[in-house]
Amino acid sequence: MNVGGRAFRTIWEGGDGRTVEIIDQTRLPHEFVTVSLLTVDDAVHAIRSMQVRGAPLIGATAAYGLCLALCVDESDEALNTAFNALLASRPTAVNLRWALETMRGILSGTPRRERVAVAYKAAAKIADNDVASCRAIGEHGAKLFADLAREKKKLKGSEPLNILTHCNAGWLATVDYGTALAPVYTAFDAGLAMHVWVDETRPRNQGASLTAWELGQHGVEHTVIVDNVGGHLMQHGMVDLCITGTDRTTYTGDVCNKIGTYLKALAAHDNGLPFYVGLPSPTIDWTVSDGIRDIPIEEREKTEVT
Amino acid sequence: MNVGGRAFRTIWEGGDGRTVEIIDQTRLPHEFVTVSLLTVDDAVHAIRSMQVRGAPLIGATAAYGLCLALCVDESDEALNTAFNALLASRPTAVNLRWALETMRGILSGTPRRERVAVAYKAAAKIADNDVASCRAIGEHGAKLFADLAREKKKLKGSEPLNILTHCNAGWLATVDYGTALAPVYTAFDAGLAMHVWVDETRPRNQGASLTAWELGQHGVEHTVIVDNVGGHLMQHGMVDLCITGTDRTTYTGDVCNKIGTYLKALAAHDNGLPFYVGLPSPTIDWTVSDGIRDIPIEEREKTEVT
Repeated sequence: MNVGGRAFRTIWEGGDGRTVEIIDQTRLPHEFVTVSLLTVDDAVHAIRSMQVRGAPLIGATAAYGLCLALCVDESDEALNTAFNALLASRPTAVNLRWALETMRGILSGTPRRERVAVAYKAAAKIADNDVASCRAIGEHGAKLFADLAREKKKLKGSEPLNILTHCNAGWLATVDYGTALAPVYTAFDAGLAMHVWVDETRPRNQGASLTAWELGQHGVEHTVIVDNVGGHLMQHGMVDLCITGTDRTTYTGDVCNKIGTYLKALAAHDNGLPFYVGLPSPTIDWTVSDGIRDIPIEEREKTEVT
Repeated sequence: MNVGGRAFRTIWEGGDGRTVEIIDQTRLPHEFVTVSLLTVDDAVHAIRSMQVRGAPLIGATAAYGLCLALCVDESDEALNTAFNALLASRPTAVNLRWALETMRGILSGTPRRERVAVAYKAAAKIADNDVASCRAIGEHGAKLFADLAREKKKLKGSEPLNILTHCNAGWLATVDYGTALAPVYTAFDAGLAMHVWVDETRPRNQGASLTAWELGQHGVEHTVIVDNVGGHLMQHGMVDLCITGTDRTTYTGDVCNKIGTYLKALAAHDNGLPFYVGLPSPTIDWTVSDGIRDIPIEEREKTEVT
């Protein structure tokens, strides 16, 4: 996606073919700063401190973190140590484990001297596959948006389609395009009139800081609202659909996403509104069936609230 | 209620028998400052700027605002001008209109020269009646709490009763004791083990700033949470009941309260938990039947969010 007219992904390989470059998302929306990850510890820190966040981007960063570890030591021991450090960096998003296991599966059958090259190739493939998934979510979702807009036009004339989203599941949460916001961008580029209600998303304010910034960069009309407001807007006919991302989804379809998503889903249900989840396949956890019982929820520092 | 060991109401008559004293709630929790209201304009400002807030306290402040107007001019014209200025100061809480109409009903049959004395007596009665209502809510609610605690003890042993509240409906929202929090204080004083989840209540943070301060002053164990968290806590068995206040209640029972209350009510319903509203009779609007259609919702400055 574009930042100030220049195309960016959220993660890319540096000019030396080793270093990994990211956007430091803790500095947005006030500053656009990129950071070089030189070691696996840098990658762990980037995930833990939320310089990178969003399930798909966490997965891609972890994959590149293994590459950085192998640059120093190509042994099985080093691979396992890095695997475990990266896996422990955030607990909820399942893409993290998926990306690490995908990488280890490929690398365990690779001779040591070839591991670095194979690792970078595999990490790049994870990143490219995420981009392809997100583009496909965008195309699929944009058709749903167009259908809803047609229905709305029959009832209410030419009002824009009002979309509510929670947290950030835009391109900043992925390698590019986004999950929940991919259909917004695709539909917007196709000329659909839209307005997005952006939940502030306390305590970390990813809606106010990241989603609003993204939408602004792309020119999509939007309004930041406090997390308490969505239900009221739905009761008053001011929301046509909700769409969010997901950190992890059980094989039974339970979606586990940023705290507060559940409250908006209840309100959408109570008001007969569609609630969509933009969901790439690596966020499905095929080992768990109960979203409340089986998915660990991260508890972070109290200072993030105060 | 006590502040630093000294008993306070939220509004009281000054030593000169004319001035009205309030706690400036915009300064809490960092500073405890009282302010003298000398004119009806001071009263309008206090309500509009939320130095005083909470439906019952807004009503009492409006009643005293009429007293301050009559101190300058006892005429019908002055009474009507003050009535209209006070009525326009906040739109949602119906106690405001109720208190003003109660006062005007008494004063319109009172000779001009007696109006000031009669007005202060009537305003004091409104305040005293609010205190009596809140005490009764406390006694009634504390019985419900004790019943729930007994049920919980059978199932889970001696865990404290976990109560979730939204916004501030404690003594700061009333003249004394509170509506939603009156049962908390009554039950606490009777020795019931309790813990209160306090919704931060964006955008004005009345939970974090006022409810947490009140509960802390009284010694009630509590935790401030972001507004997004309540549903999750309910899903995980960490809430036993919800209780809030109300700005206005239709005669059909629709409760209109601080933005976000609806989302918690939906979550309580989805988890089979009781949701109570601490409701003094002046917050019932006998003229309206539909809480979504008929109750005006205040929209304040965008800067309260940003």
